[in-house]
Amino acid sequence: MKNLKGALMFGQSGGPTSVINSSAAGVFIEALKHPDKITRVYGAAHGVKGILDENFYDIGKEDPKELELLKYTPSSALGSVRYKLKKAADDETDYKRILEVFKKYDIRYFFYNGGNDSMDTCNKVSKYLAQNGYECNIIGVPKTIDNDLCGTDHCPGYGSAAKYVATTLMELNLDAKVYNTGLVTIVEVMGRNAGWLTAASALAAYNGLGPDLIYLPETAFSVDKFVADVKGVCEKNNNKCIAVVSEGIKTAEGKYIGEFMASATDLFGHAQLGGVCFSLAGIVKERLGVKVRPIEFSLLQRCAAHLASKTDVDEAFEAGSAAVRYAIDGETDKMVVLIRDVKDGKYHCSVELVPVEKAANSEKTVPKEWITGNGTGLSKEFIDYALPLIQGEAKAPLENGLPRFARLKKVKGGK
Amino acid sequence: MKNLKGALMFGQSGGPTSVINSSAAGVFIEALKHPDKITRVYGAAHGVKGILDENFYDIGKEDPKELELLKYTPSSALGSVRYKLKKAADDETDYKRILEVFKKYDIRYFFYNGGNDSMDTCNKVSKYLAQNGYECNIIGVPKTIDNDLCGTDHCPGYGSAAKYVATTLMELNLDAKVYNTGLVTIVEVMGRNAGWLTAASALAAYNGLGPDLIYLPETAFSVDKFVADVKGVCEKNNNKCIAVVSEGIKTAEGKYIGEFMASATDLFGHAQLGGVCFSLAGIVKERLGVKVRPIEFSLLQRCAAHLASKTDVDEAFEAGSAAVRYAIDGETDKMVVLIRDVKDGKYHCSVELVPVEKAANSEKTVPKEWITGNGTGLSKEFIDYALPLIQGEAKAPLENGLPRFARLKKVKGGK
Repeated sequence: MKNLKGALMFGQSGGPTSVINSSAAGVFIEALKHPDKITRVYGAAHGVKGILDENFYDIGKEDPKELELLKYTPSSALGSVRYKLKKAADDETDYKRILEVFKKYDIRYFFYNGGNDSMDTCNKVSKYLAQNGYECNIIGVPKTIDNDLCGTDHCPGYGSAAKYVATTLMELNLDAKVYNTGLVTIVEVMGRNAGWLTAASALAAYNGLGPDLIYLPETAFSVDKFVADVKGVCEKNNNKCIAVVSEGIKTAEGKYIGEFMASATDLFGHAQLGGVCFSLAGIVKERLGVKVRPIEFSLLQRCAAHLASKTDVDEAFEAGSAAVRYAIDGETDKMVVLIRDVKDGKYHCSVELVPVEKAANSEKTVPKEWITGNGTGLSKEFIDYALPLIQGEAKAPLENGLPRFARLKKVKGGK
Repeated sequence: MKNLKGALMFGQSGGPTSVINSSAAGVFIEALKHPDKITRVYGAAHGVKGILDENFYDIGKEDPKELELLKYTPSSALGSVRYKLKKAADDETDYKRILEVFKKYDIRYFFYNGGNDSMDTCNKVSKYLAQNGYECNIIGVPKTIDNDLCGTDHCPGYGSAAKYVATTLMELNLDAKVYNTGLVTIVEVMGRNAGWLTAASALAAYNGLGPDLIYLPETAFSVDKFVADVKGVCEKNNNKCIAVVSEGIKTAEGKYIGEFMASATDLFGHAQLGGVCFSLAGIVKERLGVKVRPIEFSLLQRCAAHLASKTDVDEAFEAGSAAVRYAIDGETDKMVVLIRDVKDGKYHCSVELVPVEKAANSEKTVPKEWITGNGTGLSKEFIDYALPLIQGEAKAPLENGLPRFARLKKVKGGK
């Protein structure tokens, strides 16, 4: 536990979410309240890449009103990066450079906001600096729509993406039933290895407008079984069926369905780019002779801040501000986690710390016992888990009928 | 001008919108206020098909609270249909049947809610009944996200879809810029022959987060020019470009680009189903060697009631209720139109009538002089036209954090 005084560096990493900037707002707004401990607040451009390139912004020069709007602005306002540090034992170059930059700017607080890989970065940098006698309190702040980080009940970013998936599924359900002719709708949701977000489509069923079939990457996927399942629903249901598949559905051997059906080409030999839902749609049309509509939620599901969950926005903000308070108190080498507490049937959430190793490079998947209906549905346990996370609304004010997102000046940070 | 007393029949037709049920709510709520003139209120299941099949619901048996929620419920609550009546001169069968059903149930008011084809239905039925001496006041209520009906300043349904397109484009713009690597995003928006909805993506630019390139079906599309345009933006813009294309882009000869690149197959010879954006993405990737992300808004853009424009919801409701008042006053064979009035720079909208022939089977496209930037942008005139239509928010209350849409009992209507 070291009480330090110096500058703060914050970076964003990995795929953005609707609320990753809410955590940034939490870190920045809290940090600027403690000039006695935190002498300067920097935001790294494109995560660790910005640190290596000495490319970061002086957050103290931003308008406080814009930092407040950051809470409701989707995507990574500072820019993100996918960059995995090598082991220091194999190649010390990046670590030496980080140490050099941290020394130059007297960085004594470092916060990194991301998923598994980002927690790995926190862990490695933390260990290296400690071994080299450089005092710096380092806290990881979790984020991911995939909800696959270990050690935390859930991840900031998941609730808003889940709310998007469930709300949109309800609307699609009404639209897909509109004609008195058959239609199979196949919706593809993000999530390579964990099906949390795809599972969120089941929340729509709670309000009576859910999909008929849900396929997670946790269960081996068979194209033949899929077609048979769709056929079964169509027979019962006037040739109408809504199926939701995870982008990460795999064969029993672990091969992604999307990959083994990829490399489609059009009449002119051009590659067709698109998700697994398009291939599945072609197969269903061919085998069952029904009209099929494939819909890929694509980036929309991770940036739809207009549909953010207030619970998620508030928790993401709190995760960022709590990280600053913990670090000021001398905590380091930890990750902020969200702890669920249900009292009298009411959901409460508090913030705690776990060793950052706990989250680094591991993935939490949907428990097998929550997957029901021969691999096509979700249990009440899942609904009880996910429903509190999508409650409430919190979004940017409107200007000209459109969201007024934060506009940062991004003044380059000097010493 | 005939003041009639009898039952009312209402039907929905064509592709649904976020606010087609707002017009239904307008018709139903207004009609139920006039039991002295309107003895019974029926809603046809699947439009004119429901009339032919004697399949309709008794709206007087619905809970008034649910009819209020209809205002905020997307898609066609009664079910829609795509059914074009033949000319009575060629085949009288359907017309005889409609007359028979109308006589049986004493239908003296008929309202049909839809686009060009639906106005054509109104027109034909109206003329036939008049020729056969059956008194019935018939009013068409416009709806279409395509905004392509003649005689009206704009169409109910357009404002909400436009708000969805503009808001989503802003969010995508932030997401697509997040990494410091290149990315071309190609977004596909609905609209076969009129580019109004695709043009709405320009509204995002008004708030600084618009697309770089916009392609409407009103301008001949060349794949080579498209690739060159994208290349030009990438060169100026760190290999980042956002292009929006209408599903209806065509060659100079009028051939749909989507059709001539269609029939894609995957490795196994299965048909790939998906829009023109996927083919264009493959071409751009191949020719420019950049990462490309195709995104098709698909059904989402027409059913996203959670993002409806209050202006649109209110106008759609008013179009429905005004239709009833006009018909009670003895008007028939007309279509409700929206008239724009700008006073002191403030937008006002009122409802009037035009002969239903005016809208039947004609399409209003985006004026050529509003298309700028060598066919890749929209003028200030377009922004001034469209911006008032996306103002305000109006949506269903939340239940469990998700929209509480209307639940109709759908009691079959007897005599």
